[in-house]
Amino acid sequence: MAELLSVGSIGFDSVKTPFGKVTKAIGGSASYSSIAASFFVPTAVSSLAGKDFTQKHRRIFEDRGIDTSCLMIHPKKKTLSWKAHYGFDINDAKTDKIQLNAFADFVPNLSDELKQTPFLFLANGDPEQQMAVLKQMKKKPRLSVCDTMNFYIQKKPMQVKEMVRTADIGLMNDAEARMLFNTSNLVKCAKEILKLDSRYAIIKKGENGVVLFSNNSFFALPGFALENVKDPTGCGDSFAGAFLGFLAQTGDLDEANVRRALVTASAVASFNAEDFSFNRLLSLTQTEIRQRVREFRKIVLF
Amino acid sequence: MAELLSVGSIGFDSVKTPFGKVTKAIGGSASYSSIAASFFVPTAVSSLAGKDFTQKHRRIFEDRGIDTSCLMIHPKKKTLSWKAHYGFDINDAKTDKIQLNAFADFVPNLSDELKQTPFLFLANGDPEQQMAVLKQMKKKPRLSVCDTMNFYIQKKPMQVKEMVRTADIGLMNDAEARMLFNTSNLVKCAKEILKLDSRYAIIKKGENGVVLFSNNSFFALPGFALENVKDPTGCGDSFAGAFLGFLAQTGDLDEANVRRALVTASAVASFNAEDFSFNRLLSLTQTEIRQRVREFRKIVLF
Repeated sequence: MAELLSVGSIGFDSVKTPFGKVTKAIGGSASYSSIAASFFVPTAVSSLAGKDFTQKHRRIFEDRGIDTSCLMIHPKKKTLSWKAHYGFDINDAKTDKIQLNAFADFVPNLSDELKQTPFLFLANGDPEQQMAVLKQMKKKPRLSVCDTMNFYIQKKPMQVKEMVRTADIGLMNDAEARMLFNTSNLVKCAKEILKLDSRYAIIKKGENGVVLFSNNSFFALPGFALENVKDPTGCGDSFAGAFLGFLAQTGDLDEANVRRALVTASAVASFNAEDFSFNRLLSLTQTEIRQRVREFRKIVLF
Repeated sequence: MAELLSVGSIGFDSVKTPFGKVTKAIGGSASYSSIAASFFVPTAVSSLAGKDFTQKHRRIFEDRGIDTSCLMIHPKKKTLSWKAHYGFDINDAKTDKIQLNAFADFVPNLSDELKQTPFLFLANGDPEQQMAVLKQMKKKPRLSVCDTMNFYIQKKPMQVKEMVRTADIGLMNDAEARMLFNTSNLVKCAKEILKLDSRYAIIKKGENGVVLFSNNSFFALPGFALENVKDPTGCGDSFAGAFLGFLAQTGDLDEANVRRALVTASAVASFNAEDFSFNRLLSLTQTEIRQRVREFRKIVLF
């Protein structure tokens, strides 16, 4: 039975970076997060793909032991399609075209089994829908983490805040936090997140790492410096999946272990950037993850 | 006798931030760097101020034991004047007006004594002038560090590179490094800096901390999260002054100590942002610096 459930999008991504391109590769927040989580615990995914999402595609998830029983197929529409490019600043995706297709009709409908999953990741999406998923759960998950994005922050800021209040941890990146709380100061943003009853405030900073605030402490991890970043698509979702996966595997939600989870998640996310789509995650080993965590220890040593 | 010499600008700054403003406060790269360095070793400053720079102003430096024998006064012109404001993004200074005044005529002319200073900071300035200062030195300094800025990178990129090659360490921030080497990847930037015979590549990242590369290692320190940033003016120069000051005081240029110097420098720079001009540095104590260095240890612990 799955210990971690990731609810979010599945799409086909066509991405061009200065280092190459990929056409119609599987992407989406639920893909990256579930694959990253599957390194740690039995994982399930809930999403809605289109009729062009074949058994071959599904097998990529199933080969990793991911429960795809709630990965639904729309009978008529195609899978979400995202076309984007990265320019000089490899951290900044420019969307050329997005077609929601099947995903526009996504209403998560969990099986009785998955309604009891103890660790829940609500990948970025409509905050009201994210809350609806939480309400479906038969018992309160041990830990629920929600992500968000600029689109919903602009369109539904109150609902995004309500979602952060409802989930245990609201995850966002620095630009999103600044936008949601209308201040450039990340400490002030973190305090606002904590006021929304978030157990921890975790703000992702891309290549600049991640910061963690609780009511009485502060942790900061720098980014892992990569010389060869091929495609940063999905790093945030890989980060979230590995973070929650590590916590599910270790079962310890104290801050010391949350710090270790953030380091492990940063390691996994850094690998993801080394190749297009989630290709690097598919070849990644536990030994490599542990090795990069050890490198992180050396990087911050003084 | 001074163990550290800082060569750069002295000006009067009028700065407005969302948290207040200051009018005609002493600023400039030589001011911030020499005051920060003076926490660690006897320091001297070389600059050219204008006739409106009075004994009262000079006494601020002398009260900290700073040798101002090469802080010259232009007989006719006024002191450099800089007017700027910071908006929503407190890290991004918008220059409203700059008048070089006396500083336009600055040609560093060191006394015989100062030509023997073992630790030299060449604050950002014309790279040819920076090199001229190095040539004046009677013996090669034990450590010379040069800073630069976007203006000279755009105007004289080859000379900036030549300056980095000539000094022991070329210091720059992430945006400057990306501009100078025409790549957004900081590892590639660092490799280019190291190729220019820089002993270490140190790239400042503002509130995101600092990274250090040598030929076989990498160190990253996150920024110290401040809730109350009043005025970030001079943080980069305070950082450089404290960095070089710590190295001069400890006399150890091995990487382990350079890492400690970067932490100490980050601590001093973070204090500088807590008040306008260098006011916070004037009240800062050794105990407070040590305390913040200890906090840095807790921040990165996992």
